[in-house]
Amino acid sequence: MGVAETLVSKATVTDRPCFLSIAEAAKLIASRELSPVELTRSVLERIDETDARVHAYATRLDERALDSARNAEAAIGRGENAGPLHGIPIALKDLYYTAGIPTGAGSDVLSGFVPSHDATVTQLLRQAGAILVGKTVTHEFAYGQNVPPTRNPWDLERTPGGSSAGSGAAVAAHSCLAAMGTDTGGSIRMPASVDGVVGLKPTYGRVSRFGVVPLSWSLDHCGPITKTVEDAALIMNVIAGPDPRDPASASVAVDDATRSLREGVRGLRLGVPSNYFFDRIHRSVGSAVERALNVLEDMGAVRVAVEIPHVELSVPIGIGILMPEASAVHQSWIRQQPSRYDDGTRRMLEAGELVLATDYLRAQRARSVIKDEFKRTFQNHRLDALITPTEPTAATRIDQMSVDFGADELEPFFSVFVRQTIPFNVSGLPALSVPCGFSEDNEGGRIGVGLPIGLHIAGRPFDEATVLRIGFAYESATAWHTRRPPI
Amino acid sequence: MGVAETLVSKATVTDRPCFLSIAEAAKLIASRELSPVELTRSVLERIDETDARVHAYATRLDERALDSARNAEAAIGRGENAGPLHGIPIALKDLYYTAGIPTGAGSDVLSGFVPSHDATVTQLLRQAGAILVGKTVTHEFAYGQNVPPTRNPWDLERTPGGSSAGSGAAVAAHSCLAAMGTDTGGSIRMPASVDGVVGLKPTYGRVSRFGVVPLSWSLDHCGPITKTVEDAALIMNVIAGPDPRDPASASVAVDDATRSLREGVRGLRLGVPSNYFFDRIHRSVGSAVERALNVLEDMGAVRVAVEIPHVELSVPIGIGILMPEASAVHQSWIRQQPSRYDDGTRRMLEAGELVLATDYLRAQRARSVIKDEFKRTFQNHRLDALITPTEPTAATRIDQMSVDFGADELEPFFSVFVRQTIPFNVSGLPALSVPCGFSEDNEGGRIGVGLPIGLHIAGRPFDEATVLRIGFAYESATAWHTRRPPI
Repeated sequence: MGVAETLVSKATVTDRPCFLSIAEAAKLIASRELSPVELTRSVLERIDETDARVHAYATRLDERALDSARNAEAAIGRGENAGPLHGIPIALKDLYYTAGIPTGAGSDVLSGFVPSHDATVTQLLRQAGAILVGKTVTHEFAYGQNVPPTRNPWDLERTPGGSSAGSGAAVAAHSCLAAMGTDTGGSIRMPASVDGVVGLKPTYGRVSRFGVVPLSWSLDHCGPITKTVEDAALIMNVIAGPDPRDPASASVAVDDATRSLREGVRGLRLGVPSNYFFDRIHRSVGSAVERALNVLEDMGAVRVAVEIPHVELSVPIGIGILMPEASAVHQSWIRQQPSRYDDGTRRMLEAGELVLATDYLRAQRARSVIKDEFKRTFQNHRLDALITPTEPTAATRIDQMSVDFGADELEPFFSVFVRQTIPFNVSGLPALSVPCGFSEDNEGGRIGVGLPIGLHIAGRPFDEATVLRIGFAYESATAWHTRRPPI
Repeated sequence: MGVAETLVSKATVTDRPCFLSIAEAAKLIASRELSPVELTRSVLERIDETDARVHAYATRLDERALDSARNAEAAIGRGENAGPLHGIPIALKDLYYTAGIPTGAGSDVLSGFVPSHDATVTQLLRQAGAILVGKTVTHEFAYGQNVPPTRNPWDLERTPGGSSAGSGAAVAAHSCLAAMGTDTGGSIRMPASVDGVVGLKPTYGRVSRFGVVPLSWSLDHCGPITKTVEDAALIMNVIAGPDPRDPASASVAVDDATRSLREGVRGLRLGVPSNYFFDRIHRSVGSAVERALNVLEDMGAVRVAVEIPHVELSVPIGIGILMPEASAVHQSWIRQQPSRYDDGTRRMLEAGELVLATDYLRAQRARSVIKDEFKRTFQNHRLDALITPTEPTAATRIDQMSVDFGADELEPFFSVFVRQTIPFNVSGLPALSVPCGFSEDNEGGRIGVGLPIGLHIAGRPFDEATVLRIGFAYESATAWHTRRPPI
């Protein structure tokens, strides 16, 4: 404890409010020490300053954002403050429908597409007073094997992660205060981990996907990428809840996610899997997570060794579901305009058309086995959360196709970055990635140095509150989130 | 109105209580005018009398049944009556698990299989005091293209319908007081219709399928086949409700299904589709349903012409889901012991393995369109129920492969008997078949004479109460249920 919880010292505020967290900015806006226009200008300047190198944005909305900021400011002048997101500049992954604003999904197929309505999440964020400064770069339809132009703010030669590449990089570069991502196999948590920011994949059904370009209905999740855990809670308070327009939306009551944030971790039982999740990871990752567990234990949490049977099947199960569902989404488009897809995306979509229904159904049945194993693990050990490394390594080089874990063979990029996260898409459990340090040496050339590492905290269904509470306690004790990338 | 509501005159009771309805028998058991042993003996004698010709039973349980009946009687002696099913002899389709009693599912594959536990429904019926007199014949795994030995009690040369063939025939023959069936494309309502008895397919998720051999998870329903509508309500009161052991079980509160039974139909709005359901049916069927609608209108119901867009896609959608789901269930068995399947079943299961996942997913997506159309129809017209013919014709001859509706081509048997019912498996809406008369002439050799016809009453999700209420009012006014087959 005892480490400062604020991102910036008060002195910096007036200079560069883009570096503030949502919670900090909201407080200053509420007390009229900071104006939404001032804050938005600072963010737009920060985009000017960084985005020619980071390439986080697919579409910038400077004029609209300033208009919105002036309206937000006027509302405050009238004594109307919509809450913690009022006047806060945010960005949306370019899969979220934005009425009157192009939504390209990273693909030529949607080039020129301008939705006539907002996604539910877009609408909720607008109603809460958030200022949309732009749409962020995504892999093509969140699926593409293409390399987006986006770069990691910690090292411009390295990947920002994907598919929510632009959202992760923008938050890390402080070129927005927060951004929305989507997560089908890990696409929120992977960028969060490698970009040194916070990413939350909520419980399946918790946040509406209406108006978000789908990848795989039964695995897709919408969630926030933020600078701090508290900010993730503030966004969840706005976007979580039932929506009849998303058939998978759960009618489960939503509590204030910030309420229990400061309750600490004393007595909480944290499961640490003895199988799978620590089997093939870089040394820096293992020791960062181990230190994080020590920090949590020092604060009173109880560490419990657990085994999660069959969890290693999550990748074949997840991919066996994802591929045909994605192919079903794109089936008519790919017949009409195959050449507008990137080659890698098209090959994946074509391959998914060859999957048999019985194999898909077998994957869905096996999925329920995995769900049951997670449920049993939580019940049998009376766990409050599961702690794992978000990713087995740090950000790889842009041109790097595989990773060396010291095994006989190099592991392909795709496998590396999906295998730790996809079990939580398959199970639907809520999962948070929080920065937990930096890689320390290059381990014989296998990993970059000084790159962010992510701690993964997964919880019971619809118990985002506990996940955030643990993340907040850890973040407050370590303050990794106050470190800034060199850009 | 004015027609007697009872199945038998009081005088018959002591002679042949097997001819009683559940409600009638329960009243006499409660007043100790009829003993469970006496009733069970009468049913076993009726099986002796009819089953060498009807072949409704796959397994008889005479000794166990008499033991249970004696226990039921002893309980009553102690003043313990478990309710309306206490001491009532019933039968179960041979797909329902029965602890310690063979469960063959109509297949050599399960020959010799003796489950160690009961299905949830089996258990609930036992707890309610019902006496299990036997397991009834089913098409192989409720899917087979084989012709089971079972015959229609109204004409032994004709089909009893399927796949709940034995359950329908046993209830019609009065060789049990009621029986459980399963319905994936119409397998409760088809036998009910052609055997002149009552069949209820509840809302999807209303009755647990745990311990029932599956055919197609997303279309399977369990429900009762009974002599009267009130009896269906009495069984629903026992078997309906959430069950964590069936993942599709709905956590929707269950009301007493008999409570509103006698409230009549005054002011109820009955939708009669102008498309699809009356397009290709025999004249006897059309006029029986028309007369039934007149009876309901005379009692104060309001007839509303409606159109249900896209409902004609229910057959390809339903079959596109059913086939691969069935193949997924049987995939490993069929590889291990292909020769133990009937040829027709095996061919269907093999064909289902060729369905692509994208086609299956397309069918599931189209299914949600059908669901929406039904929902919209109910909402826009403020309907209480939809009225259609259960089947387009009456029972066909055992060897008959197709039916002549006067069109250019004969229609294959399978299509004839599934097309009117499967829309309600696809939509999941509750649906009841009630006897509504008999075929009157042979329509140029196209239909048998003097055979039962069924009226189909479908309702809003989880509104079995209204469906039963309409069925009860109609049944009370017409008393078709008091007619006995010639056997």
